[in-house]
Order: sequence, then structure tokens, then C-alpha cells
Amino acid sequence: MIYFDSDYMAGAHPRVMERLSSTNIEHTVGYGCDDYTKVAATKIREACSAPDADVYFLVGGTQTNATVIDALLRRHEGVLAAESGHISVHEAGAVEATGHKVLTLPHYDGKVKASDVKCYIKEFYNDDTYEHMVAPGMLYISQPTEYGTVYTMAELTELSAVCRDAGIPLYMDGARLSYALSSEGCDFTLADVARLCDVFYIGGTKAGAMMGEAVVARTGVLKNFFPLVKQHGALLAKGRLLGLQFDELFTDGLYMEIGHYAVGLAMKIKRAFVDKGYEVVVDSPTNQQFFRLPNDVMDSLKKEASFEVWGTRGETHTVVRFVTSWSTRDEDVDKLISLIK
Amino acid sequence: MIYFDSDYMAGAHPRVMERLSSTNIEHTVGYGCDDYTKVAATKIREACSAPDADVYFLVGGTQTNATVIDALLRRHEGVLAAESGHISVHEAGAVEATGHKVLTLPHYDGKVKASDVKCYIKEFYNDDTYEHMVAPGMLYISQPTEYGTVYTMAELTELSAVCRDAGIPLYMDGARLSYALSSEGCDFTLADVARLCDVFYIGGTKAGAMMGEAVVARTGVLKNFFPLVKQHGALLAKGRLLGLQFDELFTDGLYMEIGHYAVGLAMKIKRAFVDKGYEVVVDSPTNQQFFRLPNDVMDSLKKEASFEVWGTRGETHTVVRFVTSWSTRDEDVDKLISLIK
Amino acid sequence: MIYFDSDYMAGAHPRVMERLSSTNIEHTVGYGCDDYTKVAATKIREACSAPDADVYFLVGGTQTNATVIDALLRRHEGVLAAESGHISVHEAGAVEATGHKVLTLPHYDGKVKASDVKCYIKEFYNDDTYEHMVAPGMLYISQPTEYGTVYTMAELTELSAVCRDAGIPLYMDGARLSYALSSEGCDFTLADVARLCDVFYIGGTKAGAMMGEAVVARTGVLKNFFPLVKQHGALLAKGRLLGLQFDELFTDGLYMEIGHYAVGLAMKIKRAFVDKGYEVVVDSPTNQQFFRLPNDVMDSLKKEASFEVWGTRGETHTVVRFVTSWSTRDEDVDKLISLIK
Amino acid sequence: MIYFDSDYMAGAHPRVMERLSSTNIEHTVGYGCDDYTKVAATKIREACSAPDADVYFLVGGTQTNATVIDALLRRHEGVLAAESGHISVHEAGAVEATGHKVLTLPHYDGKVKASDVKCYIKEFYNDDTYEHMVAPGMLYISQPTEYGTVYTMAELTELSAVCRDAGIPLYMDGARLSYALSSEGCDFTLADVARLCDVFYIGGTKAGAMMGEAVVARTGVLKNFFPLVKQHGALLAKGRLLGLQFDELFTDGLYMEIGHYAVGLAMKIKRAFVDKGYEVVVDSPTNQQFFRLPNDVMDSLKKEASFEVWGTRGETHTVVRFVTSWSTRDEDVDKLISLIK
Repeated sequence: MIYFDSDYMAGAHPRVMERLSSTNIEHTVGYGCDDYTKVAATKIREACSAPDADVYFLVGGTQTNATVIDALLRRHEGVLAAESGHISVHEAGAVEATGHKVLTLPHYDGKVKASDVKCYIKEFYNDDTYEHMVAPGMLYISQPTEYGTVYTMAELTELSAVCRDAGIPLYMDGARLSYALSSEGCDFTLADVARLCDVFYIGGTKAGAMMGEAVVARTGVLKNFFPLVKQHGALLAKGRLLGLQFDELFTDGLYMEIGHYAVGLAMKIKRAFVDKGYEVVVDSPTNQQFFRLPNDVMDSLKKEASFEVWGTRGETHTVVRFVTSWSTRDEDVDKLISLIK
Repeated sequence: MIYFDSDYMAGAHPRVMERLSSTNIEHTVGYGCDDYTKVAATKIREACSAPDADVYFLVGGTQTNATVIDALLRRHEGVLAAESGHISVHEAGAVEATGHKVLTLPHYDGKVKASDVKCYIKEFYNDDTYEHMVAPGMLYISQPTEYGTVYTMAELTELSAVCRDAGIPLYMDGARLSYALSSEGCDFTLADVARLCDVFYIGGTKAGAMMGEAVVARTGVLKNFFPLVKQHGALLAKGRLLGLQFDELFTDGLYMEIGHYAVGLAMKIKRAFVDKGYEVVVDSPTNQQFFRLPNDVMDSLKKEASFEVWGTRGETHTVVRFVTSWSTRDEDVDKLISLIK
Repeated sequence: MIYFDSDYMAGAHPRVMERLSSTNIEHTVGYGCDDYTKVAATKIREACSAPDADVYFLVGGTQTNATVIDALLRRHEGVLAAESGHISVHEAGAVEATGHKVLTLPHYDGKVKASDVKCYIKEFYNDDTYEHMVAPGMLYISQPTEYGTVYTMAELTELSAVCRDAGIPLYMDGARLSYALSSEGCDFTLADVARLCDVFYIGGTKAGAMMGEAVVARTGVLKNFFPLVKQHGALLAKGRLLGLQFDELFTDGLYMEIGHYAVGLAMKIKRAFVDKGYEVVVDSPTNQQFFRLPNDVMDSLKKEASFEVWGTRGETHTVVRFVTSWSTRDEDVDKLISLIK
Repeated sequence: MIYFDSDYMAGAHPRVMERLSSTNIEHTVGYGCDDYTKVAATKIREACSAPDADVYFLVGGTQTNATVIDALLRRHEGVLAAESGHISVHEAGAVEATGHKVLTLPHYDGKVKASDVKCYIKEFYNDDTYEHMVAPGMLYISQPTEYGTVYTMAELTELSAVCRDAGIPLYMDGARLSYALSSEGCDFTLADVARLCDVFYIGGTKAGAMMGEAVVARTGVLKNFFPLVKQHGALLAKGRLLGLQFDELFTDGLYMEIGHYAVGLAMKIKRAFVDKGYEVVVDSPTNQQFFRLPNDVMDSLKKEASFEVWGTRGETHTVVRFVTSWSTRDEDVDKLISLIK
């Protein structure tokens, strides 16, 4: 069987695994106060051209979103997000469990529009009863989005400007940030992200790490974050395991290499489906690809390749998703392509 | 330098590490729905002689406590715990963050007494205003306690009986359960724990795993636990990593072997200090040892050995803690002993 | 000036006020344990033909919604509601503050459709990832809705059936229930409401009381409700004040008399606007009436009558709301009608 | 029967009741935006010599405590309070329900010592693991305390200084503040309270109002408080009812008159018990008096007077509480005294 279900089906990138193995019996202090973690933070600051940024390492994505959002919002505030956003749909109410409403905006292939954000905030404060409603206290975006799409530099710049005008922080969920940065036509860098966002995270779990997400924040934006991380159950006792992994990912460009590799394979898959005349559902330049296939074609593929149905099976056609990662082999992609009738 | 600071300073036990390495590039489904995790759960059920128990794998201790307690309590209830309990002191308010009060009981070297629990509940319901107060909805104990002490079979049996009489669940925090089961004079088994508790967890992080805690619950006690785990940010995407580690820990008795090894070294350390005439602060039969040392003795030891001060430095004497684990070497213990003047 | 802004602009109905005055210096026990409160509960049970119902008295509407919803839901669940529902929009995130998501459904003049509820629940459990999402744990409806519309007996019956099939409670926000029961064409009674809902409240604040809402629940549905009411800050120390008011409201049909009186005046206002050719925005049979008026007409009316703009002022026309209550005088309505050009 | 159970057994002081009656049919805007409420706030600012203070009116005490504490604390912080404090014991976990721990201090007849507060904070930050614990984010005191005792000017000054040195707000629960200000030997004024505290509330419910508590805060300390009040279900729709009552209470010194009257009667009761040789349990200078009575004396008194047992009935002696208020009649006190054997 060849696998395209998701980018978290295998363990860690071999270099990351090797790093964990080779340091395994060393003794260091816990909770991320060790030197490996310090080095990792420094490398991330460098990669972000943000020498003063605060960097924290947490374990998983939902956990990171809930902790950051809880840290950024005041009690009467909610978080603006696309109605398709991960926090809106697929985090089992983790944000609400911390007491905050997710205020939804329309999405366009997973993205929110700056004009919609601006309009929401304007209308909110124009409403005489706004103090009876939940105030928009921050904006959440995912990059790439849950649909694999990527905000352009212009879009990010505009979103950032709208948020700064409104005095609310912009937070980017970068669970798959590696693939956005490696996407075809990507016109921004990690430094741009660090400059335009107030807080964002560099996803490790889906890009070569066993687990781990690196939160990057403008200095002082995340006040008293350490105890909140602990309170949220997001503080790993053997914190150096996260530091070590990010240290390796940010050595010799591994993080970007992983992204480029997976995106390259994804583009190959996309072209193959397009060449065969199948419908691309969302024009994603990243490692997730969505196609609408006739059910017989899908069923036939399913016999030799593993991938997810997106939503529910249609009567005649069904949307499916193919995901690549560092663990996808070139020959698996070739095999898949050969299977497409 | 030789290290006795804690049992979470190194990575994973070599066998666990090897297991993660050898399976690293395999593809499995996420979120703990893979076969390795199923096997681990089965082995744990067997080790507990609890064929119907529900088993879940979470990442860390504070997270596990908060998630389980949130699952067990109704909104108007709180959790009874020793005032020295980890949830009372060292979890940054994680339990309160889920909306529940920690109701504290006096502790005796870290342990609670069944008679105190019984009395608390009786007095509570005898108070005419009890509906204006927080109802005791469950009991939390740690085994071993934060002081390294261990509840005996008789004590556990009594606590269990009091809880069942009162109709509240008994939950055991087993972050270091391996060391309690391996302690000198231990008169109970994992099967006894499973029989007497409603929910408990088998700690991995402090006993050979990189990270991971295995929650074991009587059938159906933890209702709708999966979405709660997700909501608490405690669901690892690459869930098999937890399954694999516990699978290995519960193969050929590794989990107990780790405990016995560390406790053996701890006893050796204890005897050495006792032989030299130093005061044992708490008579701990597990891998944590507490001594009150003259400050000059402590300062001298500190030059070649790393260990924690327990509380604050006293004027003439200070309490210190030495902890052993699978990663403590026999020769390190010998070296330490040679350093004791 | 004549007033049509809302139904909470005056104090209490004179009979209610008189009752509070005449009993003012009596001494009774606190927290609603007094006899007046018992009598009020009994009268409400009778009015509902629900001799076994549990009855509780809280102070205000948002508070009642948050407390009841918190009591009914388990931690991983959310509450289904119309996107226009009071809890979705105008309660400052009170539901989310208790940790629960409001799951929105489309609304039709403020009402939800049973078919939409059914479909939501079905699709939810058909989704393979449903355990990563917030489970629909109850349904919230308001009767009348925020648009003044009323669910018919058939609609209520269908909603109740869908909920019972799905095993989730149906909760009705009856802040203005008096006006629904008194609406033109109303085809259900309080007994029907009690039979079809699991929990609902009979609004006092907007129907003759100074403050106070009476929660009616099927026996045992609201477990441990008293401490939750206390925890939510919803327990009035001088609880008899709520009991006394509802005792009076449910003596000699006062509660319904108040509704009929206000609805009668509202219908008079509606007919007057219709007769003059103005647009009725929502066909409300209750004490709230919505019209779209040319701005000059609205501005002219504003000089002598007080009423609310609904939403924001339009370029040429604006939607306005007129509300009646026991405190609206017949001559004020006549005056208003004479002002309509 | 004569009543000494509590100070919330009757309705409102006749002047307050008359005020509510005489304004009953007026129409005003809701939610406390009316002129009566503005006037009340102004009078309170004057009485506090705090022309810039922010004043808010909420409904009840537990609600006020939970809302203020939620507003003052950041997510990782808890509230310091006497272990006997109302929020520690008798609010059904309302503070914890908002996610915050109550950090308890020893009490001395209900009072906390500034030195204990100082010491707690110092030891907290001296602990290397303080970021794993709940940070003391504010101090809660009640004045008078739950034992009827009163902090002196010197004590308040010292508590205020300790809090300001530590950079945490001092919050005073003034549910019975009228009686503290009217207590024998009281050496501070409302202006002192306003100067020394960051936030406090002037209790209405227990001092002449039907319900209502007036929160007074140093300018800007309670940020975005209105939406939080709404979120906590503490915003009364007919908000003017609270304004009107406080307007009356702060007209011609009624609030202090009520206090002096009740305290005068309480002192009379205390002297009578002392004269007969009974033990005063706490030396309270306010409207609550605690005596330890032989059970036969208590049982005999119970036949003609209503009062509370404090705690549980002892074998031979029992502690009882007598409370006075504006509604206690002089002749009732005389009657009580005549009953004391």
C-alpha cells in the first residue's frame, strides 16, 4: 500500500530521529530550560530575522492554538477566524473551553479577506449594543489554510494593517507553514511572517518532527506565557526533546528542504490528475491536493493507495485529498500516477 | 558531573528509543487509532488483570490530571486532594482553569488518610449550607506521593471503600507508579490498583518513556473521553508514538525492571547517608530520597553532583532531594557515595 | 414623550409592586426557601399541568440561559441555536464563558427548522472526525423569537420529537413567553410547552415583574441545580422577592392578562402602520413590531415617540421596532397612531 | 417569633421601598444607563471623596465577587483570601468556575495579616518553581469579616501598602460595609476605603436594599467591565432599580443610619449576654454577634427567637449567631434580652 492520507503518519525525519537518538542518554534540566532549546530558539530568531522575538516550544497544534488564544484575549473578547478555520471546526471546542467565542468570517478557499475583517470590526463598534456582544479581540488565520491555499504577501500585509489599525493581534497557525513557504509562487519569507504577525507558530509535527510547535511572538506580546503553557498541560517535562528537534530542523535548511520536497511531489500529483482531466477542487500550491473523482475511479485507486475522502461520498463523484510529506517516497508518487486511469 | 536532579533529565530508555527508531518510517493512522496503540492497550489491560478496562494515552502528567478530573467531575463539584498534592500546588492552576476547586486535606508525608476523607464528606453533608459550598466529587491521590511515600494495600483498600461508600470515584496519579510498585515492602500489584481505583494513570515520562501517560479506567467511567482529550490539547497527532513506547514498556517486564533498578540505587544512596549519620527527612521507599544536610556538606557535594534543594536553603541545614531513574548509572551512585563525608 | 423602546423600561406591574410593598417588612428565610416561593412554584406547576416539574427562580435572562445550559451540557458538548438567537449574539459570550460552543443553525425570521436540527445531528455523526468537533448536546430556542415570531404547536412538536430521537434536551428561552401565549393565533398552552420541552423559563422581567425568571424542568433533568445557581451568581439572597412576584403573576391569570393587553396594543400599532402603507418587516404576532420606514417619517416620529432603530440607519429607509408592555398606555398608542403620517 | 437569623430576611428599608413605588411607572432606558443610576453613582463618588472613581451596580454578592475577580486577574493568577473568606468557602466555587484558584491565608477571627500576605508573595517568588504554581494576583478581604470583625485603619493601610508594593490590587468585599463603618471604635471612613482599596463594593442587599451591590473602582482599574458584567449574568435589565435604591441609601445619610441602628441593637444584645455570663466567641463590633451557649439555654431561646447555629451542635455547648438589621425592632431586642436566663 502507498500512503497519502496525511503528513503525520510516519515518525520523525531521519535527521531528527538521529539527533534524538544520539543525545538520548544525556542529562539536561527539564521544561525547556536546557541549552538545546536555547540554541533552537536562537536559530529560529535568526531564520525569522527577529532577534528580539520570544520563542516557546509546545507539543501539538490544538494545544498551541488554545494556549496562545487564551494568552492573547481578555475575558470579554473572542477570536475572529474563517468559518472553515481549524479552531472553528476541528478542535473539539478547545477555544470555547477556555471561555472564548470563535467569531466566524466567511472563507474563500479557506482564506479570510482583510476587507471582511475590517467591516466586521467597524460594524461591531457601530452597533449601539456592542457591549452586549463578544468583542473581536484578535484575528486567527492558518497559513496554509485547511484547503491548502496560501495567503500572498499582499494579503498578509493587508491583514496585518487591518489588525494594527484595530489594535488587535494577528495570530497565524503555521501547522504546515513549511509547505506555505515552499509553495509554488510563494512571495514571502519567514521574516515577513515574523514582521507582519504578532504571534505565529512554526509547525513541527506535520513537517519532520515527532511532535512540537514553535511559537514565535513579538517581544512582550505573550505575557506570563510560561505558567499558562503549564496550566494548559502543554509544558513537556523533557522539554529538550522539542528543542533538539527544532534545532535540527533549523540546521542547514532542513525545515525548508522538507517543505520543498513534499510540495514538489504534490505538484507532480496535481499535474498527473489534471493531465488525466480530473477536476481540481481547490487550486492548492502546497502539500495537500484536492480532486473530485468519479466514484469508480476513486474506488479503484483505493485498492492500492491510501488517502482520505473529503467530506462524504457523493452519488457519482467524491472529493478526495492526497497529502505528501518528507516520508512520501518518489516511487510511491510514480506508482500513484501510474494508477490514475 | 553526576545527576540526581530528577527522573526526567534523559531521553527514553534505550529499548524504547530503539523501538521508536526501528518503526520510524512506517505509516500508520493518527490519533492513537493505530495497531501499536491497540497492542499497548491490550498489554496494559493484561498487566492490570482488567480485561474490560478503558485505556487512553496522553502526553504529560499535568495534562492528564486536568483532563481526567474535568471528565469525572460535574460542574458543582471539586476534587479532594492532599494539600501537598501535585494538583494542589504544582500545576499552575490547571484544575481550576477547568472550573473546579481543589479541596485540600491534611497530608501525612504526602498521604491522605481515609478517615479524613470520610470525615470531610460527612461534615460537608451535615452542614446545612452545603449547597453553597463545593461538593467533594472525587478523590485524587498520588502513588507514590510527592514525598516518595507509598500507600499500602490496606490504605488503598480503605480509601477505595470510603470513596465507594460516598459514591465518588478514586483517581490515582501514577506519574511514578513504577517506583511505587517496585518499592521495598510493596504489598500490592498493578491488578490491585486497577481493582481499587476507578481511574489511574501509569506514568511513562518519569519511567522510561520520552513522554506519555497511560490512563486506565473502569469500563465506562470516563464517558466521551476522546473529544475531551482533544479539547484539552492532549491528543497527540502521531499517537502511535505513545502506543509504541508503552508497548515496549510492557514487553518482558521492562516497566517493572526500570522501577526496580532505580529503587535499588535509591536504597543504596539512602543507606549511605544513613550510615554517615545524616537525617532522612521522609522515609521514602521509592526513587526519591530526601535528606537534611549541613550546608557545608551540601555545598561540597554540589561541586561534583547535581541535585535539587527542597524548599529554601536553611540557615545551617537544608533539605535536598536525590532522584534515580533508568538513566542513573551504578558508578554514578558509587561516586556519589564516595563523596559523602 | 411616549415610549415604545422595550418592555423593561418601567418597574413592576402595579399588582406585583403592591404585593412587594405589603409583605415588605415580613421576615422569611433566604435563598428562596420561604413559603411564598413554594406557593409560586406550586402555582406554576399547576399552570403547566406538570405536577412533578422542578421549578427554580433566577434573576435575569442571560444568567438563566448560561446557568441552564451549563447544567444541561457535558463538557464536550455545545448548544444548537439559531444564528439570530439571543445566546448566539447578545449575551456577551456568557455561554462560551462556561466553556461551551454555540453551534449555529440558519434562522427563518428567528426560528429554527426541525429538519435543519435533524440534518445537523445526522451529518455530525456521519462525519468520521466527529470526535474532533463539538457535539450537539441540546437545542436552544426562544419563544417568541428575537424577531417576535412564534413557533406553532406543530413546529414545537416536531422540534421536540427531533430532540428526543437524538437524545438531547430541548430548552426554551421564554423571556417573553407571556406574549407568545397571548399572540394572535396561538395554538398551544403552557401545558404544551411543559410537555414538549425538557427545560424552559417563564420570563418575569419583561412581563410584569421587577426582575425574575422561573425555570421549569422535567423532574430530575436539572441535576444539582441549586449549587450551580449559586455558582453562577444567580441565587438571590432575598429569594422570596422572586417567589412573591411569580405568586402574584400566577394569581387570577395576571401573567396572561399582561400578555393579552400588550399584544392587543401591538396589533393596533401594526394595523395602523399597515393601513398607512408601511412595510411590515417581520410578521410578528407578539408585542414587538418591526417596520421599514422612510427616514423622514422615522425622524418625524422620533420627535414625539421613543423607539429603537433595528440595526443601522439605511440611506432612505430604516427598520424600527415598537414594543408594548403592561406599562404602555392605551392613549399612548392612540397618540402614536395619530402621529403616523 | 422574633428574628435574628440574618440581615436579609426582610424586604427593603421603607424609604427604599417607597422610592421604588413612587417611581414605578416611569419609563427609563435599561441596563443602568438611566439618570437615577447616574445620580446614585455621583452620590457614591461624593461619599467616597473619589470624584473620578468608576461605579457599577450589580445584583448580588457572590456574583459581584466573581465578576470583579475575573476582571482583575490574568489567566495564570489566583486570588489571595483568608481561608475563612466568603469566596473560599461559601460561594459554591464561583471563583474557580471562572478559572481562578483561591489561594488561602490563615485567618485571625476572619482577618488576614499584612505580614502573612507579604510573606506569601515573597516566598512565592523565592521558589524556583514559581512559574509552575498559581501566582498571587490580588488580595480579597471582607470588611467586616464573616466573623463580624473589622479591620482597623492601621491594618487597612498596611494591607494596602503591601499590595501596592507587590503590584497587586486590593479588593474589599463590603457586603456588610455599612456595619463596619458604623461599628464601635471604627477609625476609618468610606473615603479611606476608597483611597486604600483598588476596588471594593458597598453592599446593598444586607443594608437596606432589596438587592444590589455598588462596585467602586479606582479609575480604569476595571477595564471593559460592562461586557464582563453582562457575560457574568450580572447586568439587570431594569438597571434603574439598583440606581434608585442606592440613590435613596445615599440621601440624607440613610446608609450610615441603617448601620448605626443595627449595630446599636447588636451591642445591646452583646452586653446582655455578657452580663449574664455567657461566652462571646468573637469580639465583633458589628451587627453579627456570636455566643457559645449551653445547649439547654439555646434550646429554650429557640422556642421564642429565631437565630442560626454556627457550625454544628456541640455536646454541651453550641455556638450561635444573632444578626440585626434595619428590620430588627427595638422591642424584639428587649424581648430577646428578657428571654436570656
